[in-house]
Amino acid sequence: MSDFRQQALDYHQYPTPGKISVELTKPANSSKDLSLAYSPGVAEPVRAIAEDPDNAYKYTAKGNLVGVISNGTAILGLGNLGPLASKPVMEGKALLFKRFAGLDAIDIEVSHRTTQDFINTVANIADTFGGINLEDIKAPECFEIEQALIEKCNVPIFHDDQHGTAIVTAAGMLNALEIQGKELRSARIVCMGAGAAAIACMELLIKCGAQREHIYMLDSKGVIHTRRDDLNEYKALFANNTDKRTLEEVIEGADLFLGVSGPDLLSPDALKLMADKPVVFACSNPDPEIKPALAKKARNDVIIGTGRSDYPNQVNNVLCFPFMFRGALDVRATAITDEMKIAAVEAIRQLAKEEVPAAVLEASGDNALSFGADYIIPKPMDPRLCQRVARAVAVAAVESGVAKIPLPKNYMLDQG
Amino acid sequence: MSDFRQQALDYHQYPTPGKISVELTKPANSSKDLSLAYSPGVAEPVRAIAEDPDNAYKYTAKGNLVGVISNGTAILGLGNLGPLASKPVMEGKALLFKRFAGLDAIDIEVSHRTTQDFINTVANIADTFGGINLEDIKAPECFEIEQALIEKCNVPIFHDDQHGTAIVTAAGMLNALEIQGKELRSARIVCMGAGAAAIACMELLIKCGAQREHIYMLDSKGVIHTRRDDLNEYKALFANNTDKRTLEEVIEGADLFLGVSGPDLLSPDALKLMADKPVVFACSNPDPEIKPALAKKARNDVIIGTGRSDYPNQVNNVLCFPFMFRGALDVRATAITDEMKIAAVEAIRQLAKEEVPAAVLEASGDNALSFGADYIIPKPMDPRLCQRVARAVAVAAVESGVAKIPLPKNYMLDQG
Repeated sequence: MSDFRQQALDYHQYPTPGKISVELTKPANSSKDLSLAYSPGVAEPVRAIAEDPDNAYKYTAKGNLVGVISNGTAILGLGNLGPLASKPVMEGKALLFKRFAGLDAIDIEVSHRTTQDFINTVANIADTFGGINLEDIKAPECFEIEQALIEKCNVPIFHDDQHGTAIVTAAGMLNALEIQGKELRSARIVCMGAGAAAIACMELLIKCGAQREHIYMLDSKGVIHTRRDDLNEYKALFANNTDKRTLEEVIEGADLFLGVSGPDLLSPDALKLMADKPVVFACSNPDPEIKPALAKKARNDVIIGTGRSDYPNQVNNVLCFPFMFRGALDVRATAITDEMKIAAVEAIRQLAKEEVPAAVLEASGDNALSFGADYIIPKPMDPRLCQRVARAVAVAAVESGVAKIPLPKNYMLDQG
Repeated sequence: MSDFRQQALDYHQYPTPGKISVELTKPANSSKDLSLAYSPGVAEPVRAIAEDPDNAYKYTAKGNLVGVISNGTAILGLGNLGPLASKPVMEGKALLFKRFAGLDAIDIEVSHRTTQDFINTVANIADTFGGINLEDIKAPECFEIEQALIEKCNVPIFHDDQHGTAIVTAAGMLNALEIQGKELRSARIVCMGAGAAAIACMELLIKCGAQREHIYMLDSKGVIHTRRDDLNEYKALFANNTDKRTLEEVIEGADLFLGVSGPDLLSPDALKLMADKPVVFACSNPDPEIKPALAKKARNDVIIGTGRSDYPNQVNNVLCFPFMFRGALDVRATAITDEMKIAAVEAIRQLAKEEVPAAVLEASGDNALSFGADYIIPKPMDPRLCQRVARAVAVAAVESGVAKIPLPKNYMLDQG
């Protein structure tokens, strides 16, 4: 076993198994403490919540608590390994929620027979949490699941593999197009992959201005077109009335390529067919659709992003999801609206255009970073992200009418 | 509002709402840390668990994690106030699990339509946890729920309102009977109340040697007897073939009274009808079936226990449940067996017979405690409880064949 793989196992095993624990936030030493925390004192907050459910935000941990929920049907790039095997990923997500946004998050792994059974289970436990992050649920079931839970639940529901990916991708792509001097509205787009992330990315790009008819989407059988009869309803929305059938055919003259498919599926020759000044996001992990060095060798007018931290322009969901929930929970949003997603896109875009503090450079191991082909989106360790993205999301929640409380005074404003 | 009630609300609200948080147990500062905790490193424990589910105990928090699950249908003495209102109690239980046994516990509040819907929901999320503590679920549904979950789940299921109460009650009653020079086998017993706790207490006493036909149980309609046609199947097991219909009739000559009913329901006159040297557990909370001072005034040969910390002999579930789970999880028990429950009873009994350390006296505000009428069970703050009860439970789990791993070497043994 490689050093890194052994280190990863050791990290998870020692000194205690796993990565998270539950701790007390209140004193629990004396008999008096316990009489307040439990019987008889606990009857007071119970009565208060029975009178007004909103008191749960006042007297319990609900308002800062995110449920990270999976059925393990699409774990990372590893596939359907079942709920229990997804637990390290879900605990990892909980760790990121805490580390980046101070949110308490707990993982729940759900076994189920039918999709409806999964939906019922999550809906039944939803009131426990301030919000629910769905994770690693395979397509197309994830679309039905998310939609049903949005309708059934009073707390925000967010399938990060779809929307977190879409938000960060859109932020990076819009900045890359800006640098290349192109408009999203007129951009010709190729999307290789037709799973949850691919579809969510394309839907969000359309909301940001892209034209649906300019998009060519490919699944494992090739181009998705109107004469195919094997498409689920979500792919069918991207069926293009075209005679083109292969990547080589659709990529000719394209401005934007998004890969959420598999390693090395974009050849240098195909890349050369793209329009001038193309943008390529090769997000297959750990091995991208084309390696940045190979892409740059094929043509030096390309801007390329990947999912990896060891190349420039890492498309990483952690730029968004902790702050999406931070902002949503801080104004008790009942849902995640398109306005909130677009606000997050804009906040992430904007941050990349600002001067990078020395601490961020140090953490990322870079000498200098300035807005341009090799720096189109912020680094994951940028501490300004929480402030900017959470504030933008919270403001958008208030403006789109889903916030149950007003924006806290001076919320996430610069103190300087 | 009284000072205490306001203090209880303040305790829950400030400085942060609620009583528990989720924290990191591993470093998450550098990019390297995050690459181990999340992508790509997390793929290693995922693969290991997919290969062998037991690896979840090695690489995730599962083995130390208890789900505290309620539907809020029987909250404390307050009744059916719904799942959300039960949250402060469930968080309180989580606080006690951590404080007394170092277990991570998280509350889950379940909304549901049918009993079967509740069962499915809990069964579907059960693999998330090392064990499940059911709480504040009303009778008779709680019996069906617990039984169904025991059959469906691979992790131990324990309805504390039933079995935790029963274990601590049995320990106290057996010690009280010993002090009074009586045998459980021949004891005549009156149980006032026929809910979850009452039925579980009587069933456990029978397993400890009591005779079912010596038990008179009363519900709100009076004595449960064989000619009643309004009994659910759980009460029906206690239907006595008798012409007696009232408390006064059945209490005459009784050795043992258990009250889990309501305040002041045992009059001094009724108490006087009991046999010589009676044992009375008046566990209605916060106001017992008879106040200890009143009972002692009626007859000074009585030993009395209550649910309150401000009287001697407090029957408090916290003497058991944290350690029941500590012991069960430490040997990965797949169930809580009768042997484990009886082992807990015996461990609690035995501890009450030992010398009480100064620290315990100080914490409980007592000058002296020694085994006798006013000290029949240990104090909740006794730090020896974890060691004794968890060890007894773990040993019994191994002996009754439900432990998946052997007893850890020197498990919970005195270090001195």
